[in-house]
Amino acid sequence: MPRPVILFSGSWTDLSLEELAPKSGEWGYQGLELACWGDHFEVQRALSEENYCEKKLELLSRQDLTAAVLAAHRVGQAVSDPVDARHQALLPDYVWGDGKREDVQERAAAEMMATARAAQRLGIGVISGFTGSPLWSFIAGYPAPDRETVVQGFRDFTRQWNPILDVFRDCGVRFACEIHPGQLAFDLYTAEMTLDALGGREEFGFTVDPSHLHWQGVDPVEVLRRFPHHILHVHVKDAMLSLNGRAGLLNSHLPSGDSRRGWDYRSPGHGGIDWEAFIRGLNEIGYSGPLSVEWKDAGMERESGAEEACKFVKRLDVEPARSDFKF
Amino acid sequence: MPRPVILFSGSWTDLSLEELAPKSGEWGYQGLELACWGDHFEVQRALSEENYCEKKLELLSRQDLTAAVLAAHRVGQAVSDPVDARHQALLPDYVWGDGKREDVQERAAAEMMATARAAQRLGIGVISGFTGSPLWSFIAGYPAPDRETVVQGFRDFTRQWNPILDVFRDCGVRFACEIHPGQLAFDLYTAEMTLDALGGREEFGFTVDPSHLHWQGVDPVEVLRRFPHHILHVHVKDAMLSLNGRAGLLNSHLPSGDSRRGWDYRSPGHGGIDWEAFIRGLNEIGYSGPLSVEWKDAGMERESGAEEACKFVKRLDVEPARSDFKF
Amino acid sequence: MPRPVILFSGSWTDLSLEELAPKSGEWGYQGLELACWGDHFEVQRALSEENYCEKKLELLSRQDLTAAVLAAHRVGQAVSDPVDARHQALLPDYVWGDGKREDVQERAAAEMMATARAAQRLGIGVISGFTGSPLWSFIAGYPAPDRETVVQGFRDFTRQWNPILDVFRDCGVRFACEIHPGQLAFDLYTAEMTLDALGGREEFGFTVDPSHLHWQGVDPVEVLRRFPHHILHVHVKDAMLSLNGRAGLLNSHLPSGDSRRGWDYRSPGHGGIDWEAFIRGLNEIGYSGPLSVEWKDAGMERESGAEEACKFVKRLDVEPARSDFKF
Amino acid sequence: MPRPVILFSGSWTDLSLEELAPKSGEWGYQGLELACWGDHFEVQRALSEENYCEKKLELLSRQDLTAAVLAAHRVGQAVSDPVDARHQALLPDYVWGDGKREDVQERAAAEMMATARAAQRLGIGVISGFTGSPLWSFIAGYPAPDRETVVQGFRDFTRQWNPILDVFRDCGVRFACEIHPGQLAFDLYTAEMTLDALGGREEFGFTVDPSHLHWQGVDPVEVLRRFPHHILHVHVKDAMLSLNGRAGLLNSHLPSGDSRRGWDYRSPGHGGIDWEAFIRGLNEIGYSGPLSVEWKDAGMERESGAEEACKFVKRLDVEPARSDFKF
Amino acid sequence: MPRPVILFSGSWTDLSLEELAPKSGEWGYQGLELACWGDHFEVQRALSEENYCEKKLELLSRQDLTAAVLAAHRVGQAVSDPVDARHQALLPDYVWGDGKREDVQERAAAEMMATARAAQRLGIGVISGFTGSPLWSFIAGYPAPDRETVVQGFRDFTRQWNPILDVFRDCGVRFACEIHPGQLAFDLYTAEMTLDALGGREEFGFTVDPSHLHWQGVDPVEVLRRFPHHILHVHVKDAMLSLNGRAGLLNSHLPSGDSRRGWDYRSPGHGGIDWEAFIRGLNEIGYSGPLSVEWKDAGMERESGAEEACKFVKRLDVEPARSDFKF
Amino acid sequence: MPRPVILFSGSWTDLSLEELAPKSGEWGYQGLELACWGDHFEVQRALSEENYCEKKLELLSRQDLTAAVLAAHRVGQAVSDPVDARHQALLPDYVWGDGKREDVQERAAAEMMATARAAQRLGIGVISGFTGSPLWSFIAGYPAPDRETVVQGFRDFTRQWNPILDVFRDCGVRFACEIHPGQLAFDLYTAEMTLDALGGREEFGFTVDPSHLHWQGVDPVEVLRRFPHHILHVHVKDAMLSLNGRAGLLNSHLPSGDSRRGWDYRSPGHGGIDWEAFIRGLNEIGYSGPLSVEWKDAGMERESGAEEACKFVKRLDVEPARSDFKF
Repeated sequence: MPRPVILFSGSWTDLSLEELAPKSGEWGYQGLELACWGDHFEVQRALSEENYCEKKLELLSRQDLTAAVLAAHRVGQAVSDPVDARHQALLPDYVWGDGKREDVQERAAAEMMATARAAQRLGIGVISGFTGSPLWSFIAGYPAPDRETVVQGFRDFTRQWNPILDVFRDCGVRFACEIHPGQLAFDLYTAEMTLDALGGREEFGFTVDPSHLHWQGVDPVEVLRRFPHHILHVHVKDAMLSLNGRAGLLNSHLPSGDSRRGWDYRSPGHGGIDWEAFIRGLNEIGYSGPLSVEWKDAGMERESGAEEACKFVKRLDVEPARSDFKF
Repeated sequence: MPRPVILFSGSWTDLSLEELAPKSGEWGYQGLELACWGDHFEVQRALSEENYCEKKLELLSRQDLTAAVLAAHRVGQAVSDPVDARHQALLPDYVWGDGKREDVQERAAAEMMATARAAQRLGIGVISGFTGSPLWSFIAGYPAPDRETVVQGFRDFTRQWNPILDVFRDCGVRFACEIHPGQLAFDLYTAEMTLDALGGREEFGFTVDPSHLHWQGVDPVEVLRRFPHHILHVHVKDAMLSLNGRAGLLNSHLPSGDSRRGWDYRSPGHGGIDWEAFIRGLNEIGYSGPLSVEWKDAGMERESGAEEACKFVKRLDVEPARSDFKF
Repeated sequence: MPRPVILFSGSWTDLSLEELAPKSGEWGYQGLELACWGDHFEVQRALSEENYCEKKLELLSRQDLTAAVLAAHRVGQAVSDPVDARHQALLPDYVWGDGKREDVQERAAAEMMATARAAQRLGIGVISGFTGSPLWSFIAGYPAPDRETVVQGFRDFTRQWNPILDVFRDCGVRFACEIHPGQLAFDLYTAEMTLDALGGREEFGFTVDPSHLHWQGVDPVEVLRRFPHHILHVHVKDAMLSLNGRAGLLNSHLPSGDSRRGWDYRSPGHGGIDWEAFIRGLNEIGYSGPLSVEWKDAGMERESGAEEACKFVKRLDVEPARSDFKF
Repeated sequence: MPRPVILFSGSWTDLSLEELAPKSGEWGYQGLELACWGDHFEVQRALSEENYCEKKLELLSRQDLTAAVLAAHRVGQAVSDPVDARHQALLPDYVWGDGKREDVQERAAAEMMATARAAQRLGIGVISGFTGSPLWSFIAGYPAPDRETVVQGFRDFTRQWNPILDVFRDCGVRFACEIHPGQLAFDLYTAEMTLDALGGREEFGFTVDPSHLHWQGVDPVEVLRRFPHHILHVHVKDAMLSLNGRAGLLNSHLPSGDSRRGWDYRSPGHGGIDWEAFIRGLNEIGYSGPLSVEWKDAGMERESGAEEACKFVKRLDVEPARSDFKF
Repeated sequence: MPRPVILFSGSWTDLSLEELAPKSGEWGYQGLELACWGDHFEVQRALSEENYCEKKLELLSRQDLTAAVLAAHRVGQAVSDPVDARHQALLPDYVWGDGKREDVQERAAAEMMATARAAQRLGIGVISGFTGSPLWSFIAGYPAPDRETVVQGFRDFTRQWNPILDVFRDCGVRFACEIHPGQLAFDLYTAEMTLDALGGREEFGFTVDPSHLHWQGVDPVEVLRRFPHHILHVHVKDAMLSLNGRAGLLNSHLPSGDSRRGWDYRSPGHGGIDWEAFIRGLNEIGYSGPLSVEWKDAGMERESGAEEACKFVKRLDVEPARSDFKF
Repeated sequence: MPRPVILFSGSWTDLSLEELAPKSGEWGYQGLELACWGDHFEVQRALSEENYCEKKLELLSRQDLTAAVLAAHRVGQAVSDPVDARHQALLPDYVWGDGKREDVQERAAAEMMATARAAQRLGIGVISGFTGSPLWSFIAGYPAPDRETVVQGFRDFTRQWNPILDVFRDCGVRFACEIHPGQLAFDLYTAEMTLDALGGREEFGFTVDPSHLHWQGVDPVEVLRRFPHHILHVHVKDAMLSLNGRAGLLNSHLPSGDSRRGWDYRSPGHGGIDWEAFIRGLNEIGYSGPLSVEWKDAGMERESGAEEACKFVKRLDVEPARSDFKF
């Protein structure tokens, strides 16, 4: 049985869930990865209002959609980041508050715990998201951090996240930390270090989105092979490189869609990811969760693009060999 | 006449200049790019002590070495950086002071002005260095800065550097800003933006070190061609890529020399830089300044390495066509 | 709204327009780029016979086809070429006449002016075509032309084409000069030189056919980016390289279809052109004209090939992003 | 015994042979490929003046140089080319005469016969050179020549060259036709066709210069393997490709040395030729003639370049296995 | 008319022909390459039982399937192999017998003759198969065989196969020897040697399966071009390379499907074969026989895979140009 | 201190050691890897004759050569190979005897034990060599061995080698099994399996020769990284790939030196091995043993080749960083 193809609602929060759900159904999706921002899913209302969760599920099921995964990227980012002005736009007012760095981090941690409880109410076992990083601002630049600074970054991270993961464990929910620039785990070896820092605890695993690995030169399939038991969620997003001697990999402070950039996001199948190898990699590790389309492409109309993407992913998802018939 | 081959003293400040100078001469170098840290060149003493500069020059000339360029990377970095704990180790105590961000930035700006005056005393026309960046901590991560934040970063930069460059102009000295990760100008397009932000003023140009461009996918020769009149200084340092699907370009917080990294520095000729093309590019734009070896290679013994590098660069520096004899 | 997909009739003049039109409609095309040779469109009859144009348009509209562009490659070629025996087969008798070089060139120029007037009658704003080149016979060979010869070639060209373009201007028609081997503008830099030679006059722009650029090593998207305001027409034709150490790029005087060649034409999607990048390039410069299939493939049956090509181009033409929704 | 390394004097005719010879000796060369233009070798004087040849040989032997090969590129070019204004500068007045195409061709043919006789006097067995081509002006352009035109071109060629080769045969001299753009034989397959057209006659073979093959995508070693018994002479010249999406292989009418070109000549070892494979290829076919450096590099000073090239070629010329000792 | 797409039944002998035939029809196949093992086709019964062949053909025609080719890989392998324990599982008991090497080889030869006679009864003109090799066990290892050993291997081969091919000739049947590792003909040059060893006799030609050539670095199209008159049969099977510095081309004694391997088989279109070029190569040599899908892919469910493969091959098989209309 | 550069005498046994030693010294070598065949080192005489070892060492020390390693490839091969006619030429008569497979294997095992005792006498701690393989004859061919056959092959191997390694242990000598086609350990994963099969016993490690890995697609540096504690010896030999679509990796039964092959051996520096990376890999794992040139190149004269190789390896062997000075 093929994996469910779902849509990550995080790129569509300019639409209400009431607007997005019927569109998603028409485009062919079988479920949503629900963003915990905009009106798609509001954690505090889910915990305080009777029937909030039931109504959301009903709304979705009218379109034959399931709520497969909850997405908590924005709040998670504030837990371990050195919070600055950019974060205000990402957070609910009650988390941002006065914007004092340590206080925001603490409120964000509390909100992550609340999100786990809300997921339990909704009957969802996986929350995808970001963690922020105490070390990102030192990446690739000057002066390089010394070894002690790096070690301290990982210590801060575990101090901040272990209590959150305790709540996840109690709620029977797992955290699928997205391997993504800006996070502590942004490539294969930092994902290793992060898992080790947390002592390999069971509530913690990864969301793999090949687009973030591709431009760094990391093979997404190597990541699958390295963590066969910790891939909890998958984003389907493409990326392309356009290095011509002038463009650079760090993209010159240019926004997505600017043709001078060295890499950019693409709708699935329009970039450079080897999806054939990626799907076989997922088969090899026995991943049976959803394939969640995170639609981002500054060069395509987004609604026809999202529809095309759904078809592409369904065609892509070849059935693995089921017997052990030998040649 | 070939270009002088000099050694950047910044990687050797564990040695006193008295120790380094004779070694440099023996290895075959014709001059030094003098670091303004350690005891190699002390800006405040140069301005306050009679004969300080003369004695330094004498020390060098005993080994047939010239003082070709002054290097002010560490202090320059603090001018536009959001200063943090890492900077303390880079700065003299009188610049670091209480470590308060804005105050450090101001003292660093004053020290840069003093450096220009010291260069004038020394009879040197080019200071190489860093600038720091108000935007680097947002690079490649999440959340991406919006357009306004980027624009504001460039405005802050020009506000901070224009007064410094006024002093450079008055002293007849030019600033060779190194295109380097961690700076505002880190690739071809950001170098363009930086030059534009400063209105193309004459005192400002670039140091090109191919190693910093290579791993980003930028062709160093394209940078030479783009700024034929603004290349004020050149660092000779190699770099190699070792992507194998597991290593990543952002290097996983791993230190230089760790074989898991996706790229690393190399002694000239031991990496992936196309030096043939680079030298021809320098000939094409008529660059006649020194070729300054910045020796960094975590896999080679540094003294024999520095000697080999000097020979390599001399062999490399082919003489350009001098007549216009046509075939 | 996607761009119209049309068929260039120039490869089908062995069929009468009466035969070709219904086939084109069935294959899915929405219009034709009408060749001014064979019986597809006869310039002199269009100017002298009442209703000639109306009847052609009627014939097309019966198949729901529009006349989008007029193609004047053969006559245009004779304007600046050193005419020789090969040209006789390309020209109407009244242009060839006695075959004397300068006289043929003059009559060809007059015919180009007539073509502009005929286009005006037909209600068409773009004529695609060739120009010939006084310099092509010297390309890549021996002896190389000296600088003066090259400069003189461009001077001759402007002397020959400015009067023609004056008539185009008066008729409100633009000339889409195809960047093509055998023409003065055959790659990116020669297109630049040609545009400069004509002083950038408004009636003059380019037809881009990626196949002619691909085998020369020129990226068609770089051509689009270089001339965002001068791309007047687009040919869709593919090409493939098959270099294996024995084949060469200049194709050894071997005809199309011979497997020893180093490159050859292909039906769209069967060669090496990166169509994904090309369409995004067209979106980026805001090109909204037709996509004209010039069907050439010595290894496929041409009628089923033309039908497949039409489907391929429609599928290819992704809609660009229409809002500025930000991720 | 390694092959003699000689210098092709054709790029140095701005110097008299009296000036060039001592320089060549100092640079390390063991002989010259003597150009039949400038004052290096004058065919008519060689035939009419007593001791002309002896004096030339004496001049050379004073520098320990041999006269290994005679070069007749310029006159040979006029035999089969559609002669135009460019050829005047290449030819002695007595060959150019009134410049009428057919007459120049005939006088050039007569001069080639005279050259064979002069070579015999000089004691030289190989003349290198060009042939011109009736077909080159049609290369890669529009309109493409039809099959009959191509066949006729080869017929004209054999009609023109067979009488010349008869004289070569009678003089015991062979003609090493350079495989070169602008000639009938410009790549592997056209070299095949040319050999076939001449019925494989013994007096005719090839000069291989890898630089002309490299940019066309042809592997020079494949050419050696294809004609093991017909390689009569070898030019050592390098070439490099610099395609970056903007440059093209046909070089946009740009002169050598312009950095926008898609390929250019290089001093040996400074370009992209795989010399290791080329030398082994020569060993494999048992070529024991000279290695003749044709020095062309618009980016290097030519005298130091020629000296470096001589050293490079000597180092390159590894001795082939001489026993059949088996591992 | 496109070529028939058939299924090689050899990978499906765990199913009876009664089970396989209706499935094949449903999947879209137009015929079978019938394996002479399992119950698909039993040579001795075909020769001894009345109506055996008729019944098989009837069974197939009920599903609109033809019997296009007979496959005799297993018995053929035993003719020239140094038979060992592995062969017992491949052979009928009456061929294996006591398992004595020379005796098994002889019985296998007799069975091949019988197979030719059975093919004649069935009305089939081509038998595909293996030959075994006296030299394979020495491949790529140590000690390398000396020249005499290699020559003797070819002599043994011709002694063993000439009598078999005599029977083929008498029956009007040709043998399509598969170019395949483990056989005497396993790449381009060994196929040449094998054809030469047999004196080019008419009954002998090749089955080309691109997958076996691809991982060896041999271009399947070069094989088609080399033997335009000897390609008697084609297998459609894909293969992919996954070299990452750890995997090797000889696959480390690892079974198909193990992700550590350096290459593996794939369902058509899911690997690295350039099918576009392969089909055009078949068109070029005028191959009009069947395209036989040999379905092997350890990462896909085989029944849906076989169905998808049939569609893929039909879409792939573009019609070659039928007229000689010239552009 | 750089590693000693030595010559593997196994390719020179057509010369007596008396002849080879002075040549080796002149070429610049610092020692020999002494072959246990020819007259270079005779195991039985070493054990039975008084002073045999001393005389050998004296002979070497007269040329300032050390005896660094003993090479036992030929006898080792016979221990686990299915012995056939090719082995007779490799073995002393007293090991070959009647040539009966099992008996030869047993005598070869005894001779390996004797070799360990002789090494002890000679004062040498490492014996390099082959092991043979019960599985090689099945490599890459047909029919593929089933899992049980592979497992049985490894079982036979350990049964045969454990008693030999017991003697090695008792003599204080280690066996450096060369990773090489034809052996059980021929790539990275089979080296893993072999080490595991022997339970990781201390007397057993590897000789790494990059040439054998390169053509298989295996990165020699990955092998060093995988077995940092088991690299006991290193061969320096280069290899090149020359795939052009016709050549294959399995080399078509063609002998070394035939230009149709897909790969071949080369003198160090004349092939495709990345020696820079290899030396750094050796530095990384702390390998301090000799670099042993195994000179094989069918295209170069061997004596000048061996001399050039010695120079190449000395230049190559860069000194690793010795301090932990940080940049």
